[in-house]
Amino acid sequence: MPRPFDPGCCQEPFLSLAGEYPEADVYPPDQFRVEWGPVFHRGRLDGSARVLVIGQDPAQHETIVRRILVGEAGRRVQGFLAKLGITRSHVLVNTFLYSVYGSVKARTRREPRLVAYRNRWLDALLVGTNVEAVLSLGTAADEAWQLWKATPAGQASSLVHATVTHPTQPESSSRGDKVKLAAATQKLLQNWNAGLQVLSPGLAHPDASLPLVLYGSTWAEGDRLPVPSIDFPAGLPEWMREQDGWAKRAGKDDLGKRRNITITVPKGVLP
Amino acid sequence: MPRPFDPGCCQEPFLSLAGEYPEADVYPPDQFRVEWGPVFHRGRLDGSARVLVIGQDPAQHETIVRRILVGEAGRRVQGFLAKLGITRSHVLVNTFLYSVYGSVKARTRREPRLVAYRNRWLDALLVGTNVEAVLSLGTAADEAWQLWKATPAGQASSLVHATVTHPTQPESSSRGDKVKLAAATQKLLQNWNAGLQVLSPGLAHPDASLPLVLYGSTWAEGDRLPVPSIDFPAGLPEWMREQDGWAKRAGKDDLGKRRNITITVPKGVLP
Repeated sequence: MPRPFDPGCCQEPFLSLAGEYPEADVYPPDQFRVEWGPVFHRGRLDGSARVLVIGQDPAQHETIVRRILVGEAGRRVQGFLAKLGITRSHVLVNTFLYSVYGSVKARTRREPRLVAYRNRWLDALLVGTNVEAVLSLGTAADEAWQLWKATPAGQASSLVHATVTHPTQPESSSRGDKVKLAAATQKLLQNWNAGLQVLSPGLAHPDASLPLVLYGSTWAEGDRLPVPSIDFPAGLPEWMREQDGWAKRAGKDDLGKRRNITITVPKGVLP
Repeated sequence: MPRPFDPGCCQEPFLSLAGEYPEADVYPPDQFRVEWGPVFHRGRLDGSARVLVIGQDPAQHETIVRRILVGEAGRRVQGFLAKLGITRSHVLVNTFLYSVYGSVKARTRREPRLVAYRNRWLDALLVGTNVEAVLSLGTAADEAWQLWKATPAGQASSLVHATVTHPTQPESSSRGDKVKLAAATQKLLQNWNAGLQVLSPGLAHPDASLPLVLYGSTWAEGDRLPVPSIDFPAGLPEWMREQDGWAKRAGKDDLGKRRNITITVPKGVLP
């Protein structure tokens, strides 16, 4: 059975971009896990993307897969894109190349070299391409968009754009409280409905033309969808796309957690 | 500072090969760690390779990097290639796509679909290409070569070929006995000298023309060389290329060890 995959950064300008990334002089190691290397993107780099998604930063699953938004947040984004009729013509980049450690200082967020490198990616993906709509996930991603919009290329662009609540904000804000989680989820879905209604009219060439079906007040069947095989590098096993939790930062203390990632093949995969 | 990398399987026929690999029906899970996915190659797939190396199977470091021969065995191979004047014009594939678990049955080794898929890679790398010399590492890799040589394309080929002792055979055969290790290392280096003397005259277009300097009776400075940055995927951190030991199969029992790989950033990398 053929298994389609993403060959990654193998054409210009992405070939150069993936070899010229900012390192610890731009991303301070007290704010970013630079030791694990940058993670650049997910999705189409061949010019076929119709929607660009701007996320925040990669976590441990992304560090192993070397693609962004491959966990639960990514599956929720795939559900959102599917409602727009996008099943493969998407491309995703993050605000930050490296996983955030603790929090990011305002001065770092606006570091000119950090912003300039990200804007090179946004130029490559948005100027003279097929992209028709841009979605930012959360406030940092919104700022990334605004900083690009302030450039000459951004000012000249008339792409439709929406910022929505980050896909896993309900979990991070409710900290295990089920009542708070349900309320935050309902609020997120309302917010995402507003985003859909902004982006849908601007999307002239989706992969499939569908009537727009909004979210309800809780996650429903089909609202979370697998990250497509075509978004993963060649040869990665299926279980890496199916559920989160197979990569953990395990260690005795903060330093131990920072230095380690343990990958565990889920139960049921082995004979 | 630009960091060159290997974009991987992004051109035909490798694009198709990396999406059509044999799975558990061809590689029995009692003999191979199929649960971690296949690892295909290392080095040039753009037609510039002058030497093909056939290795055996990927281990845990290779599983994370998704390139073969990236650990100690790979560094010894780089030293061997450097003696032939090859610093970048190499390509490496393995006898087996998956990591061997226990031992491989003779019937599995000769499974027609396993051999046919590998021969598709060898055809792609050897027929009508720039490759001038082929090196097999160990007996399984020698058999892989012989099975290709028995095909019509192999019979028509006049490439120079040598089989040498597997690079880490001294460690695996001596099991911690230093006297045995020294003797096995000396024997390996003699064997590798014979391989160099077979391949060197057949290599008309090395990256650098150098007088052939043979190995001594122990590993010397420069006999082990780093795997080049250009052989790694984009964005992987430097420490993954420097030393072995950052990936371990840790677990309480055999199943635990099979299910887990723990990656640890080496000391001194973090601030």
